[in-house]
Amino acid sequence: MARYPLLMQRALDALTELPGIGPRSAQRILFHILRERREETQTLLDSLAAVKARIRFCPICGNLTSHQTCSICRDPSRDRGLICVVEDPKDVIALEQAGKFPGVYHVLMGKIVPLDGIGHEDIRVKELLDRAAKNAPREVIIATGSDIDGETTALYLSRELKAAGVKVTRIAAGIPVGSSLDFMDPVTLMKALEGRREY
Amino acid sequence: MARYPLLMQRALDALTELPGIGPRSAQRILFHILRERREETQTLLDSLAAVKARIRFCPICGNLTSHQTCSICRDPSRDRGLICVVEDPKDVIALEQAGKFPGVYHVLMGKIVPLDGIGHEDIRVKELLDRAAKNAPREVIIATGSDIDGETTALYLSRELKAAGVKVTRIAAGIPVGSSLDFMDPVTLMKALEGRREY
Repeated sequence: MARYPLLMQRALDALTELPGIGPRSAQRILFHILRERREETQTLLDSLAAVKARIRFCPICGNLTSHQTCSICRDPSRDRGLICVVEDPKDVIALEQAGKFPGVYHVLMGKIVPLDGIGHEDIRVKELLDRAAKNAPREVIIATGSDIDGETTALYLSRELKAAGVKVTRIAAGIPVGSSLDFMDPVTLMKALEGRREY
Repeated sequence: MARYPLLMQRALDALTELPGIGPRSAQRILFHILRERREETQTLLDSLAAVKARIRFCPICGNLTSHQTCSICRDPSRDRGLICVVEDPKDVIALEQAGKFPGVYHVLMGKIVPLDGIGHEDIRVKELLDRAAKNAPREVIIATGSDIDGETTALYLSRELKAAGVKVTRIAAGIPVGSSLDFMDPVTLMKALEGRREY
């Protein structure tokens, strides 16, 4: 045997298909599983199976839910005239934890990355435009990241939405709260200056 | 919802129990699972369940096997008088891939790490001493790593085995094949000099 037993090798192959898991991490994970109690492995496998079977994307906003629609879209107190566009469900969680946003969301499930061949047709842009056309929101806030691809996506969306007569805003770029200026990169500082507001 | 749906959170918690998986990797893995085809997730879950259910440690040497004993211990052509002691099953694979070792193995399942409170009773030392007492091997080669803990373990084993009248050897420390001297650390160079052999 110059290799692992076949069953072991299959599990290693399946694990290395996961993002961020290389051959060494896969080995460590399998040895951990071999040594832990049977119930712990079962908990892991059951929870993954449950996610795959029962978690779906909200058909309205694309957020995660185990119901027909997500808890935010179901909430009657949310302002449906204010739509915040984000890249991922985890961005929804980040914004909800900040706790001040009264509107609803639209999850793009990615961003436009021209270099990787990811265009507007690969993310949930059409759904956003359809939703805007149907619901006529008061304002759409574009909250994609402030990296190159996030900005590209924001620019594309702003054009399309404005062409459809929707008011579009972009979240502010600037220095994060609690940072000192000498740790900031020049581009962030420039954006912070550009975005200055009167007291 | 300032958090993920409960099912999602449970799976995140279970994933972060695995070695080397933090909250962010767990998120990436779950999103990958949510997006991939159902059969791919099933393959992953089935292969992990199969490993847990059917892979065991060989009762003779501690190597991995899906049979009663491992393929090396079952092989009648292997020299049972020559036992190579390693830390982990993956070391067995590394040595088997090198391809020249005619003997059998003994897997310690770890090493003595005094700082972490891992003593000789936490790894398969007793099994090795019992095996040596029972089979009276011609030679035991200690092939633990050449880091501090590997050396500590080797020293401990060599004393115990010699006390039991067994011939003990240690794999050579030195410069790896293909390396130039100026990339080597001083300790390795010193070991390489100490371990010099006549042409």
